[in-house]
Amino acid sequence: MSHHTQLSNIGVIGLGVMGKNLALNIADNGYHVAIFDLDNGKINAALEQEHHERKEGLAPRMQACNNLSQMLDKLVSPKVIVLSVPAGKPVDAICQTLIEAGITAEDIVIDTGNSLWTDTVAREAQYKDQFKFFSSAVSGGEVGARFGPSLMPSGDPSAWQYVAPIWNAIAAKVDPVTGLPIERFEPGNPVTEGEPCTTYIGPAGSGHYVKMVHNGIEYADMQLICEAYQLLHDGLGISTHEIGDIFNRWNQGSLNSYLMGISAEVLQQDDPLTGKPLVEVILDKAGQKGTGLWTAVSSLQIGCPAPTIAEAVYARAVSTQKELRIQLSQTLAGPAKASISDEEKTAFIDALEDALFCAKVCCYAQGFQLMAMAAKEQNWTLNFAEIAKIWRAGCIIRATFLQSITAAYQQNAQLPNLLMAQSFSSSLAAKQLNWRKTVAASVMQGIPAPCISSAIAYYDSYRCETLPANLLQGQRDFFGAHTFERTDKPAGEKYHLDWSAKQRTLNKV
Amino acid sequence: MSHHTQLSNIGVIGLGVMGKNLALNIADNGYHVAIFDLDNGKINAALEQEHHERKEGLAPRMQACNNLSQMLDKLVSPKVIVLSVPAGKPVDAICQTLIEAGITAEDIVIDTGNSLWTDTVAREAQYKDQFKFFSSAVSGGEVGARFGPSLMPSGDPSAWQYVAPIWNAIAAKVDPVTGLPIERFEPGNPVTEGEPCTTYIGPAGSGHYVKMVHNGIEYADMQLICEAYQLLHDGLGISTHEIGDIFNRWNQGSLNSYLMGISAEVLQQDDPLTGKPLVEVILDKAGQKGTGLWTAVSSLQIGCPAPTIAEAVYARAVSTQKELRIQLSQTLAGPAKASISDEEKTAFIDALEDALFCAKVCCYAQGFQLMAMAAKEQNWTLNFAEIAKIWRAGCIIRATFLQSITAAYQQNAQLPNLLMAQSFSSSLAAKQLNWRKTVAASVMQGIPAPCISSAIAYYDSYRCETLPANLLQGQRDFFGAHTFERTDKPAGEKYHLDWSAKQRTLNKV
Repeated sequence: MSHHTQLSNIGVIGLGVMGKNLALNIADNGYHVAIFDLDNGKINAALEQEHHERKEGLAPRMQACNNLSQMLDKLVSPKVIVLSVPAGKPVDAICQTLIEAGITAEDIVIDTGNSLWTDTVAREAQYKDQFKFFSSAVSGGEVGARFGPSLMPSGDPSAWQYVAPIWNAIAAKVDPVTGLPIERFEPGNPVTEGEPCTTYIGPAGSGHYVKMVHNGIEYADMQLICEAYQLLHDGLGISTHEIGDIFNRWNQGSLNSYLMGISAEVLQQDDPLTGKPLVEVILDKAGQKGTGLWTAVSSLQIGCPAPTIAEAVYARAVSTQKELRIQLSQTLAGPAKASISDEEKTAFIDALEDALFCAKVCCYAQGFQLMAMAAKEQNWTLNFAEIAKIWRAGCIIRATFLQSITAAYQQNAQLPNLLMAQSFSSSLAAKQLNWRKTVAASVMQGIPAPCISSAIAYYDSYRCETLPANLLQGQRDFFGAHTFERTDKPAGEKYHLDWSAKQRTLNKV
Repeated sequence: MSHHTQLSNIGVIGLGVMGKNLALNIADNGYHVAIFDLDNGKINAALEQEHHERKEGLAPRMQACNNLSQMLDKLVSPKVIVLSVPAGKPVDAICQTLIEAGITAEDIVIDTGNSLWTDTVAREAQYKDQFKFFSSAVSGGEVGARFGPSLMPSGDPSAWQYVAPIWNAIAAKVDPVTGLPIERFEPGNPVTEGEPCTTYIGPAGSGHYVKMVHNGIEYADMQLICEAYQLLHDGLGISTHEIGDIFNRWNQGSLNSYLMGISAEVLQQDDPLTGKPLVEVILDKAGQKGTGLWTAVSSLQIGCPAPTIAEAVYARAVSTQKELRIQLSQTLAGPAKASISDEEKTAFIDALEDALFCAKVCCYAQGFQLMAMAAKEQNWTLNFAEIAKIWRAGCIIRATFLQSITAAYQQNAQLPNLLMAQSFSSSLAAKQLNWRKTVAASVMQGIPAPCISSAIAYYDSYRCETLPANLLQGQRDFFGAHTFERTDKPAGEKYHLDWSAKQRTLNKV
């Protein structure tokens, strides 16, 4: 590749599926890219793919580097380098190598991995004298990275000006009129029109935080679809292929989303080995990489209710305990199997569609409220209409639904919870009875629906002007003298009843 | 107090409600106690209470210290010092002062606060050259501390030999025949017979971990009772006092527990100011101090399903968002109010009793499985029969129920989950239909029951030999090439379908 003498506009380190596809995407958009991976095979694979996909007569836009010093030599200044390496220690290892290779304080390193946002905050501070540590979470999986992901950049605003043109070019695009993704998956022919799915999120770490919550929502959204599948399969005895048909139908309505679409495709995929539906030979142990649990952990620490996201994380945990489940499935009693008429079946399927929509609204409400509470705690100014906008295309949770969220935040940027938006509360009002019927039926049939049912408890909790936390405060005051406030006294005034005295007295503390 | 010249057996630093009562409890058991607090008023209050409660003719057993050097001078060696100060920085501040005051490597400092267990592990290592940092979580609130708490000591076994006699003396006691607490709350007349509710838990941090999980279970147990209260109050329209009667009746059966008993007392307590039931003037915003959320966080990090504990933490969070709830209560639609016959009411109350029991089993199952998974990760050997035993009296979650858990672990120390114990699975089999009816009714009535309903999803998830995580793995492989295992191939073999290819092929990775 020694014939490539032009300086590159950007470097990409780490050529796994995400890094390689980001590099190809950047090159497709006219930029020259210097690439590096510790594994030489991956470098060659990337070069070959570019060669293979390149239009006749075009010069190559990728050049390989043997090491990071060489990469620095091959970049225009300020040097912009994309990291696509596993979160954690590898990020710091590369940063260290770049320092040794002579990176300067003007140069920019963009971490695109699923790093823990607090690590990103720490890294920006740690490296600020050596280079600008910038971060940009990426959502969209391998296809998104190749043809247009959703990008959540954050960090030093002076770095963003160098990154912005490239990011706007490679991001997924939305038709500004319809709000729908412009989907074109052709090498060498990137989408150049439409609204790019990237926006500067805020200070260091905020982009990774927002991406973390995106993934938490994604966990819940995926689990909701899985629960619908189990209810249809185990509860109604519908075949896997037919469930795919139902999902395809739902994908035409208010449940339209990338995840619904691919779920239908997965269900209708046959196994090349056995000819059975593929899902029926896939082992039901879910993997996870951490972002979902980080979201749940953060919600607990911040005190933002996000039970549907936490239930999705726990559902993956239960799934991995297959041996215990096999034992318990033979031990634990369930309800008697009821027979269901065709009419009931149809009604149940319709109710389930509504239930799924309602639960989905709750899981997005949880995620957006969590971001708002985190922003307040961290003193970030987040623009939720913009965040919803850049999730309309490119990312895994893209859905027409995001357009409604965008609209809700455009109408009221300070919305404390999505359930407050009239568009959502009125949809929920219309669908809530079907949601209730679905949950009640799942419980009576003994089919677990942890996310669909936790969402209804979430919804009903917010419907309560008074919750039984008054009794809870009484319990806490009884055993631990933790005091309570009174409804008829000013907020902040603490009272304690002397529960252990023979003659109990009330004292202001 | 200069007349007190005898050296003390033990020191107590921090004379808040817990520290003062621990000191009085230790003195009641014949030990001489040196006491200190930064607040002189608290020292005097402790001395006065001892004086007031002391039997005629007995010499005082407490002596005040002006500072920590003086405390060290007044203790026999090795010096044993109890810390009862808020978790976090105060613990380290006192340790530092003790070092400056000349504490030696033979001396023992016992942290009795609700410290985060990882802090305890770090402190043991940090202070090992200066003194033995030991820890002993304490449960039982102020009354427990005064007359017999449940104590969960852990750390250096060589320290435990000095602590054990005092701990055995001051701990709550259980009648070895009935398994019930021996309750006698008389100053100067401690319970000296029976099995003490303390046992050496294990290496540094393990005691605080076990106490943390105890508190996580406590959060869930309290919330379950609160949900029952709300279902009876809002769903059936039963008066607060009558609900107290129902709880008192339940407290005679399988739901017998300290928390059920005090909940009945709280419900039947009238407000001294207004004469209304006290709970009706208590503000429904629940406080929390962290241990519940730490438990939920740990369960997420370890991958142990503990949704009922997490829901209890979230329920407290929702309760604090009172203003949002007031707004949403006027916005969000609920079901139409159904009228309920007296007969249905009675049936519902009975069903709820069963539901509460079943959900309670699940929340203990979650807590014990979490301890087992943490022990495995940390390489601790925990004796769950002993842990259940020391929770039978003294602590907040004491209940006859703990006797059944003790028996289950005595029968099988390796029990992977309490649901596997025949005693529990058969009770659940008898009660599960009522549990389902309760959850279905709460959902149809629009009354939130996040813990009771998350528990049933937990139970039903474990009843599934196959969960829809197969579809989830299909989704993950589709968008992220995360691969999947196959049911018909050896564990660990990873497969990927080339979803984006026109002709999809299956590849072993």
